[in-house]
Amino acid sequence: MQSIPTQADIETAHERIQSFIHRTPVLTSASIDEIAGCTIFFKCENFQKVGAFKMRGAANAVFSMDSTARVKGFATHSSGNHGQAVARAAKLADAPAYIVMPNNSNQVKLDAVAGYGAEVVLCEPNDASRQNTCNEIVERTGVHFIHPFDDYQIIAGQATASKELVDEIPELDSITCPIGGGGLAAGTCLSAKYFSTKTRVIGTEPEAVNDAYLSFQKGEIDPGNPQPTLADGLRTTVGKKTFEIIKENLDRILTVSEEEMIDAMQLVWERMKILIEPSSAVPLAAILKNKPQFENQRVGIIITGGNVDIKNLPV
Amino acid sequence: MQSIPTQADIETAHERIQSFIHRTPVLTSASIDEIAGCTIFFKCENFQKVGAFKMRGAANAVFSMDSTARVKGFATHSSGNHGQAVARAAKLADAPAYIVMPNNSNQVKLDAVAGYGAEVVLCEPNDASRQNTCNEIVERTGVHFIHPFDDYQIIAGQATASKELVDEIPELDSITCPIGGGGLAAGTCLSAKYFSTKTRVIGTEPEAVNDAYLSFQKGEIDPGNPQPTLADGLRTTVGKKTFEIIKENLDRILTVSEEEMIDAMQLVWERMKILIEPSSAVPLAAILKNKPQFENQRVGIIITGGNVDIKNLPV
Repeated sequence: MQSIPTQADIETAHERIQSFIHRTPVLTSASIDEIAGCTIFFKCENFQKVGAFKMRGAANAVFSMDSTARVKGFATHSSGNHGQAVARAAKLADAPAYIVMPNNSNQVKLDAVAGYGAEVVLCEPNDASRQNTCNEIVERTGVHFIHPFDDYQIIAGQATASKELVDEIPELDSITCPIGGGGLAAGTCLSAKYFSTKTRVIGTEPEAVNDAYLSFQKGEIDPGNPQPTLADGLRTTVGKKTFEIIKENLDRILTVSEEEMIDAMQLVWERMKILIEPSSAVPLAAILKNKPQFENQRVGIIITGGNVDIKNLPV
Repeated sequence: MQSIPTQADIETAHERIQSFIHRTPVLTSASIDEIAGCTIFFKCENFQKVGAFKMRGAANAVFSMDSTARVKGFATHSSGNHGQAVARAAKLADAPAYIVMPNNSNQVKLDAVAGYGAEVVLCEPNDASRQNTCNEIVERTGVHFIHPFDDYQIIAGQATASKELVDEIPELDSITCPIGGGGLAAGTCLSAKYFSTKTRVIGTEPEAVNDAYLSFQKGEIDPGNPQPTLADGLRTTVGKKTFEIIKENLDRILTVSEEEMIDAMQLVWERMKILIEPSSAVPLAAILKNKPQFENQRVGIIITGGNVDIKNLPV
């Protein structure tokens, strides 16, 4: 796909990936609503296949190719959920997958990717090494490279999460989601625009990696000065394609501290009895930090994933 | 209620408590099924009001009284979920509640009970002190004592969890549940007997507190020699009324080690992204330990609750 996904592109993506994804539930919590002062609808992608919304984009990217093309296989770089998603989508397509991962990745994540039958290829933990390693694989094997976020098929796939949310829950005042590379945020912007025109989209980010916030203020990509964060899914800088969509369609970006994020994560664990990863708690943390902005509104949150290391929980 | 609950008693209990409880979802997990070699249906009472099935029995006990009787109020002793459940049920009935709790209870639990507006009364951490303290309150205030498990209204209330399960999932070969005081196990036996006659009920228990196992073998109550266990909801010995039902109706009891319980709990957290308390993991641990007994069967599990201390998770 060479241009920004249209309404029809997102509808097609949704039909295409139906059989490879769960239609995840939308949960509510009376006690969190009381604390937040608004009505929150949690779209629970932590219950998605591979434990994260990334399965949507990966399935769309893989199955948007015809069967002759896709059997050649796929490569991507990811230390997290996108790697598992591509590994699983490729397996469903009976195609080989090469997942480039930093050599300091944790063993649980390496095992998970390998568990889907993909070949893990280790690289140095920096941007240049992982892109070079991917390029080398593509050249050598002829597989297709799938960028983790800066790809219109990925964006169209991620858009299906908020499409399902607004199909099920009408008249949302806003949808909040975290921003990492921007695939989900861009997809959410498009789904709101096409399927729920009055719903504003609000991006949320940890202060430690506020590149999207800085970029949105400036109107051009600014990687900022990333600091360590527990939100490992949000460490990446927004991409060219994703930022183009975000810049035009996002309402605003709110940032939160590490502590605010962890408190919100624990609140969800405690009150809702569901496991979410730190990145997924950023939208709720932003709502709790800015209550007057959401007072009495109907607010959607995309709970992006539930992949935490159970033996070493981030608390 | 003076005798073992009938089918009509359980149906009445279910109607009576409808508006005070959630109809909790039944979840499945393809990956856990693959590991277990059977098809498991998880009845998720961790999503119940107060985070545990105990709300069912407490609501039934409170609202089975007429409005004149129930405004007098209630007393019970519990260090855990039953205390919160009675506190909440009493609040719904606009009645006072006195919850007797050991003076070594953790602050999170004390705060939770007080948060429902109940009066917390501390006692020494032993059986005699908590019963004496309750008796004293009943004498002084005229409130009704609700036993945590050895009470037919409590048993009828707990029975509604498995009634909902078999209403929704037909042809279960068995239902497995943990046994503490036996209220849930007795209720499950009755619901299977009345509403799903071919379904066997299998009790499960930590080896550390295997009083129900010993009692079931002997045919009479044997408190055994309780050892420390993380399954704090299962430390109590079966009661007279509950054991009478269990003895006649239960198929068998399986026991598991602490390690097997913790592994099963972490498996549920990891694969299902839901938080369950250690007690709730005992049935799955028993299935995984005795796979041939369950091979290719359809097995229900009552996930009893999700109340873990988030700041101090039992891992």
